[in-house]
Amino acid sequence: MNATEEFSIGLDIGGTKILSALVSKNGEVVSEIQCDTKGGEENFSHQIILAIESLLEKEDIEMNRIKGIGIATAGVIDSKKKEILYANNLNLENYPIGNVLEKKFGLPVQLYNDANAAAVGEWLWGSGKGKHNLIYITVSTGIGAGIISNDSLLTGSHDSAGEFGHISINLNGPLCACGNKGCLENYASGTAIAAIARERLATGEASHYFFAKMDGLTAVDICTAAKMGDSFSIGLLKEIGEYLGLGIINLIHLLNTEAVILGGGVMNESELILPSIRRTVQKHGIQSMVEKVKIEKSSLGSYACVVGATGLFFCKNDQLAALPH
Amino acid sequence: MNATEEFSIGLDIGGTKILSALVSKNGEVVSEIQCDTKGGEENFSHQIILAIESLLEKEDIEMNRIKGIGIATAGVIDSKKKEILYANNLNLENYPIGNVLEKKFGLPVQLYNDANAAAVGEWLWGSGKGKHNLIYITVSTGIGAGIISNDSLLTGSHDSAGEFGHISINLNGPLCACGNKGCLENYASGTAIAAIARERLATGEASHYFFAKMDGLTAVDICTAAKMGDSFSIGLLKEIGEYLGLGIINLIHLLNTEAVILGGGVMNESELILPSIRRTVQKHGIQSMVEKVKIEKSSLGSYACVVGATGLFFCKNDQLAALPH
Repeated sequence: MNATEEFSIGLDIGGTKILSALVSKNGEVVSEIQCDTKGGEENFSHQIILAIESLLEKEDIEMNRIKGIGIATAGVIDSKKKEILYANNLNLENYPIGNVLEKKFGLPVQLYNDANAAAVGEWLWGSGKGKHNLIYITVSTGIGAGIISNDSLLTGSHDSAGEFGHISINLNGPLCACGNKGCLENYASGTAIAAIARERLATGEASHYFFAKMDGLTAVDICTAAKMGDSFSIGLLKEIGEYLGLGIINLIHLLNTEAVILGGGVMNESELILPSIRRTVQKHGIQSMVEKVKIEKSSLGSYACVVGATGLFFCKNDQLAALPH
Repeated sequence: MNATEEFSIGLDIGGTKILSALVSKNGEVVSEIQCDTKGGEENFSHQIILAIESLLEKEDIEMNRIKGIGIATAGVIDSKKKEILYANNLNLENYPIGNVLEKKFGLPVQLYNDANAAAVGEWLWGSGKGKHNLIYITVSTGIGAGIISNDSLLTGSHDSAGEFGHISINLNGPLCACGNKGCLENYASGTAIAAIARERLATGEASHYFFAKMDGLTAVDICTAAKMGDSFSIGLLKEIGEYLGLGIINLIHLLNTEAVILGGGVMNESELILPSIRRTVQKHGIQSMVEKVKIEKSSLGSYACVVGATGLFFCKNDQLAALPH
């Protein structure tokens, strides 16, 4: 690190952890600190300010070498006002995170929802580099997406675009908590993997793997069992890949995208699911639209959000124009 | 029409008819001519040139008052090269329509697929005026869509975005000709309405309306019967509205759009279907995302394509930037 190099700061605010990172102009994480998320305005403000200050102290970097603070967060946001409108697990409502940090540090602030930040990260510096049209999908507790179309981040009218977990793939499917029927999230999220496994095992389907705690069975357990050769778990993850594949076909047919990039906890075990996703997309998609689509694991992994949130501060002029500001 | 007013020319090229129109800078059709479509390069070139020349002669307008020629066409296009890559029912392959017309008339040419042109038309001058995010949907023999997102036309990587008819709403649904399962087009297009009706009537469902020709039964017949009070047809169209509504929820959840505008032949009878669409969207969509979405019939109707194709030539600078050129 030379003494004139400039950086920006990225924050990835999740329900349980906050990751803060010093990010170079090439999208590299130079230094990082992780802390627990604390809910409620006062605790939360204190926590995010501390996260940034600790990072600067740790690296002994002067303020004038920081270009800005980029934030990726869960919850419903207003990217123009830079407010977290509603975040259940942070216990926040109409929280002016942009104002708070601009006032405290005198730096420009950018706010994204997490899947959008990750999409920007993968587009500028990750698996989607060089693509003009891509979709980042996170498969974790829930399922979400960030869409880059024609070198622009697609935010929709109220920063809510990309609710990929709540598109229906089955008009006769079970009612989702969101009100829709047959939402993808109920077929292929981490939560769904565990729920489907528990249900099938409870109704007598056999697994050769011994699951120690049936009640607390998670998607991680299923992945572990699959890696040990358990055919029940292998079959279930293949099926999950088919559901994700059918959802991804809908995205490709609607958006004519060039690349689909998969991240999120479930995709840590991408080798167990990705082949099935790819096979389904190639089998059932319109050939001219799917044959050249690259379907890959996120190359930025758990850094996608924190890095992507800083995308605006260093990217080229023509890319700048494409980002919301 | 004063002697200095400027116009552009719009062409809407369909499988059976070509509509050519003189369009004012306010998107008004000042004059129009319709002729049959003739397939094959030579016939087709002759036909489109004649369509334009006839229009100019009819209105006695000098060339220097025409800003450009905008084309909306069926088939697969390359909007940058201005070529019709493939159009089955026009018997054309790699046809350089832009070159042909630029050479002949010395005017700039713009090429769109039909649903995209209609979306631009509705956005600039129709039901979507003033909206930054809208979706135009055509429900006709097939189903297609044009997407405006953040004041840009979303074309995708190869002008193929908007294949709304081929998103699946049923993972267990019948195999579509495209390779996908449970495509919306097999549930809610004009073709599907007729097919479902024939199947149900053949297997004994009762209609009080006398359909003279069961084999040739069309969606128009079902609409006519519904307007006469036939409960079978009324029920079927309500169901079609539910299928369309479920597809539209997927669009809204993915794109966080402000308005959905419906056109195409089937929507000529929108009062029979629109209430069911709206009810379904409000019932099953995420409330914060659907509650403010305007779902309306196209106000430009059968002129949406021909008018929208000329959008580039007269629209404001900030809108210009948003169009592909």
